Amino acid sequence: MCRFVLYLGEPVALETLLAKPVNSLINQSWDAELRDPLNGDGFGVAWYAHEVGPQPAVFKSHTPAWNNRNLLQLGRVTKSNCVLAHVRAASPGVVVSESNCHPFTWDRFAFMHNGDVGGFAAIRRSLLASLSEKAFSVIEGQTDSEHLFALFLDCLWARRESDTLEAISRALEETVNRVHRLLWDKNITPNTQLNLAVSDGRQAVAIRCATGDLGRMPTLYWHEGRRYICENGAGRMIDYDVCSETVIIASEPLSDDPGWESLEPNSMILVAEDHQVSLRPLRCCGSIDLGKAAIIT
Amino acid sequence: MCRFVLYLGEPVALETLLAKPVNSLINQSWDAELRDPLNGDGFGVAWYAHEVGPQPAVFKSHTPAWNNRNLLQLGRVTKSNCVLAHVRAASPGVVVSESNCHPFTWDRFAFMHNGDVGGFAAIRRSLLASLSEKAFSVIEGQTDSEHLFALFLDCLWARRESDTLEAISRALEETVNRVHRLLWDKNITPNTQLNLAVSDGRQAVAIRCATGDLGRMPTLYWHEGRRYICENGAGRMIDYDVCSETVIIASEPLSDDPGWESLEPNSMILVAEDHQVSLRPLRCCGSIDLGKAAIIT
Amino acid sequence: MCRFVLYLGEPVALETLLAKPVNSLINQSWDAELRDPLNGDGFGVAWYAHEVGPQPAVFKSHTPAWNNRNLLQLGRVTKSNCVLAHVRAASPGVVVSESNCHPFTWDRFAFMHNGDVGGFAAIRRSLLASLSEKAFSVIEGQTDSEHLFALFLDCLWARRESDTLEAISRALEETVNRVHRLLWDKNITPNTQLNLAVSDGRQAVAIRCATGDLGRMPTLYWHEGRRYICENGAGRMIDYDVCSETVIIASEPLSDDPGWESLEPNSMILVAEDHQVSLRPLRCCGSIDLGKAAIIT
Amino acid sequence: MCRFVLYLGEPVALETLLAKPVNSLINQSWDAELRDPLNGDGFGVAWYAHEVGPQPAVFKSHTPAWNNRNLLQLGRVTKSNCVLAHVRAASPGVVVSESNCHPFTWDRFAFMHNGDVGGFAAIRRSLLASLSEKAFSVIEGQTDSEHLFALFLDCLWARRESDTLEAISRALEETVNRVHRLLWDKNITPNTQLNLAVSDGRQAVAIRCATGDLGRMPTLYWHEGRRYICENGAGRMIDYDVCSETVIIASEPLSDDPGWESLEPNSMILVAEDHQVSLRPLRCCGSIDLGKAAIIT
Repeated sequence: MCRFVLYLGEPVALETLLAKPVNSLINQSWDAELRDPLNGDGFGVAWYAHEVGPQPAVFKSHTPAWNNRNLLQLGRVTKSNCVLAHVRAASPGVVVSESNCHPFTWDRFAFMHNGDVGGFAAIRRSLLASLSEKAFSVIEGQTDSEHLFALFLDCLWARRESDTLEAISRALEETVNRVHRLLWDKNITPNTQLNLAVSDGRQAVAIRCATGDLGRMPTLYWHEGRRYICENGAGRMIDYDVCSETVIIASEPLSDDPGWESLEPNSMILVAEDHQVSLRPLRCCGSIDLGKAAIIT
Repeated sequence: MCRFVLYLGEPVALETLLAKPVNSLINQSWDAELRDPLNGDGFGVAWYAHEVGPQPAVFKSHTPAWNNRNLLQLGRVTKSNCVLAHVRAASPGVVVSESNCHPFTWDRFAFMHNGDVGGFAAIRRSLLASLSEKAFSVIEGQTDSEHLFALFLDCLWARRESDTLEAISRALEETVNRVHRLLWDKNITPNTQLNLAVSDGRQAVAIRCATGDLGRMPTLYWHEGRRYICENGAGRMIDYDVCSETVIIASEPLSDDPGWESLEPNSMILVAEDHQVSLRPLRCCGSIDLGKAAIIT
Repeated sequence: MCRFVLYLGEPVALETLLAKPVNSLINQSWDAELRDPLNGDGFGVAWYAHEVGPQPAVFKSHTPAWNNRNLLQLGRVTKSNCVLAHVRAASPGVVVSESNCHPFTWDRFAFMHNGDVGGFAAIRRSLLASLSEKAFSVIEGQTDSEHLFALFLDCLWARRESDTLEAISRALEETVNRVHRLLWDKNITPNTQLNLAVSDGRQAVAIRCATGDLGRMPTLYWHEGRRYICENGAGRMIDYDVCSETVIIASEPLSDDPGWESLEPNSMILVAEDHQVSLRPLRCCGSIDLGKAAIIT
Repeated sequence: MCRFVLYLGEPVALETLLAKPVNSLINQSWDAELRDPLNGDGFGVAWYAHEVGPQPAVFKSHTPAWNNRNLLQLGRVTKSNCVLAHVRAASPGVVVSESNCHPFTWDRFAFMHNGDVGGFAAIRRSLLASLSEKAFSVIEGQTDSEHLFALFLDCLWARRESDTLEAISRALEETVNRVHRLLWDKNITPNTQLNLAVSDGRQAVAIRCATGDLGRMPTLYWHEGRRYICENGAGRMIDYDVCSETVIIASEPLSDDPGWESLEPNSMILVAEDHQVSLRPLRCCGSIDLGKAAIIT
């Protein structure tokens, strides 16, 4: 089922998100709050180093996060103000490899997915056919997630502006729409879990979305405050809910401190460049008559 | 905590033990019948090919058994009449690597351990110092398990005969004794779980043994019959308990069929060359006054 | 540039091809007879076990062949009458992963490629679009090689008969034709090296083929006799050139013994079920006017 | 044979040493200036982040440096003023694993070795027996190199001061002495190549040393100046030989720029905290009568 965390805020050591808290992402690689708590089919972490350039650095491995010493070493000495990290539970039959680990990146964008596109095998080919040359060339692996990323990029590039928060959020919604159109075209009843998170290093958008069996909608939380620290396994957000200098979006709370909020089903969270948070319902999926879903422009 | 399986019997495809049954060893790599069901820190399988020679072949990986395609491929086409396989849950702090996966092998012997030698770090050096040059040179990794194997080999080589079932069984008991002497010499209260299994390709001995917190004694089962098959995930022993052409010793039953017997705490199971099974209490550990434990000759 | 070996003959231990000879495939992983002797970007071996079924078993790794202990272990105890093995030198920019190692397999077929399709990035999309659903679903990785395999399967399935030696050979030739059509359609001057080898476990076809810079045509040899043995690193074919009970097709001679023959440029070698060998010129590529290349039926 | 690089100077991106120059360390992993140019049995890089603490971070892999994408990613965004990196060619028979990659680290120290201790297998046990408990517990793998590191630490800890440049240099020399005593005690004619490099993040010492077949002495160079940059594969030291703000010690020059100096055989280079460089002959090995070698205090 996968779990992920996205961080935008005060420069933080990666380990403060990945290793130190009681429910760190590494903890979630084997003991997530899920019926199947295991996410041991690889992991990835992307972090931005703006002083070097806009592209995030990425570290991935097909091995479990809980026993990767390199990850702990990296986590100790690497700080960033924008971090995306993910632990993978591979869908049955999909290859376990570095290529299939999230986050997927292109240029300054990093993208993660928690969930599953039911019927993806049946629409993969038409999805690929619908992509621009550029988006097609982005795909390296076989996951539905990476194909969603390519779709997202196409939706983004099609917009007049592609670097605003609005553009990113609209492109995400359109991605969801387009996936459902592809399913509809193949007479496949939608059964998707589409918790998606994307960032360009300065702003971020995430959605919590599912169609079909809504009982399978994965969890997604957010947390804001001045900065997030961790002492003796106890993580907490200093000045939580008082400001938005630091925002965390995560599949599960990393810690037991107050302020973690669950994202409403089929809604979106936007984090602007100044880290101000806004929430709004998704303008797609859920109860929308997909036969009539309009392309959001 | 680890889980293992040892098989001596009619030639069987490795997958019949490792992949096919509902509670195959691969299943136990993520869903064992333990409080911590995860054994995802690598695996190993040794199988004998007597037509080639007495040494077993070994295939190991530091990656989880549940997502290793090579293992499934191998399991499908490889048959053997003697198989030892193990999935590892690394003790905290001990490196996850191929070197640290079981079974450990030397010449015709293969050896596996489920459990933990409490206080091993404190006796490792004295254990190493006690080994012959030959046994010392066998050790490649850092696990207590591999050190136990080296100890076992020394105990075996010290015997007048080293290839009889009696010799193997006595050497295993002496191994347990010697470990406890080493702990005793460092004033360490024994707290060990020593489910050990060893084979030379033709006969096998396993023990179910613990000292200290006996509530932590790992499970160990055995099963005998004509041959073990698996159809649609349902494994069963043909003519179970009627004969001993095929014997399975496993941390947990691989299947729900009748005939799986739990090994008594602190006891030993011996499988002779004709696969006849005998059981007897261990002549060491448990309630024995370790201060007075004699070297079994 | 890659190197490979295909074997059809008396059951042989894999190590006799992969490890034992002075110029074994493992030797070619670091010391091939090439300007760039390094082929350390992974390896794969497929071997048939007809008593189990028609599908070959496959063992692959993204790590170099020269330091893989599992490969040596497997090689020692595994015998087969049909073996395909390959060591990879990744084209610049193409991911090093298990998915991208050869041989590629589908059902009873195994397929390997030594060479490069110049301009592949530009035709990849049109190649994919030309595939049937079934062939499209075969592809897992990003290599030109695997895409050639999918193309080959489509060419094969399109034939009235798909299991004869003639069908396999024609499908290979058509694969070469179709690749060049795709290049032609994009105005790309062909510059391809297409040493391909395919087997269904009972018969085999290989071609030595290049277009464009013919000086880059990879080497390909063949050898026939009663059986191939190796003593002290010296491999030799018993009764070479006297019979065809055993046939080896290899990028380079595995050994210095007499009887290794170089395949003519732009020619094909066919090995029938009785292992009889025949040679013939390719009916495509080379000096053929590709604009007029006919689809071979 | 291995190759390494040690850097102390202006903060530099790891890629400037590992990836960018024409003869970067990654280049040396497959194309070193050696008779056997291949060093594809893993790699490691340690870098100091003093703002976090004195311990270096370490990233290691058992896979070749030339195809590791994580290494390129890390190299792009990670800067440090002190870097040690190594590409490994495993001695025959010694396991290829992360544990066996250099640099070896303990607390603030990082240590690398290029070469081989001939006869190590025969002295390994006595070497281990000679170690303090603390040094013994440092060793994780099976390389002579890591055992030398443990020996070095013991020599260092035995000194009244252990953090001065003099202490580090003396400890290195004593390490060489002690290894040769151990060989002498076993009547083994010394045949060692001991290019060693060690740093505590602020100062560094390296030696170029061999006994026995002096023709096998590995190369070692050094370079000093204001700072080292790389443009289009051309690396160069700004203001070379004018100052010592930046010092590089490397098995081979990373670039063709002037100023790379070969270290004299059996000599030592010391880099102080202010990066001032001094050179002096080793007070051990070479032509010294090892029977009379004194313990340097």
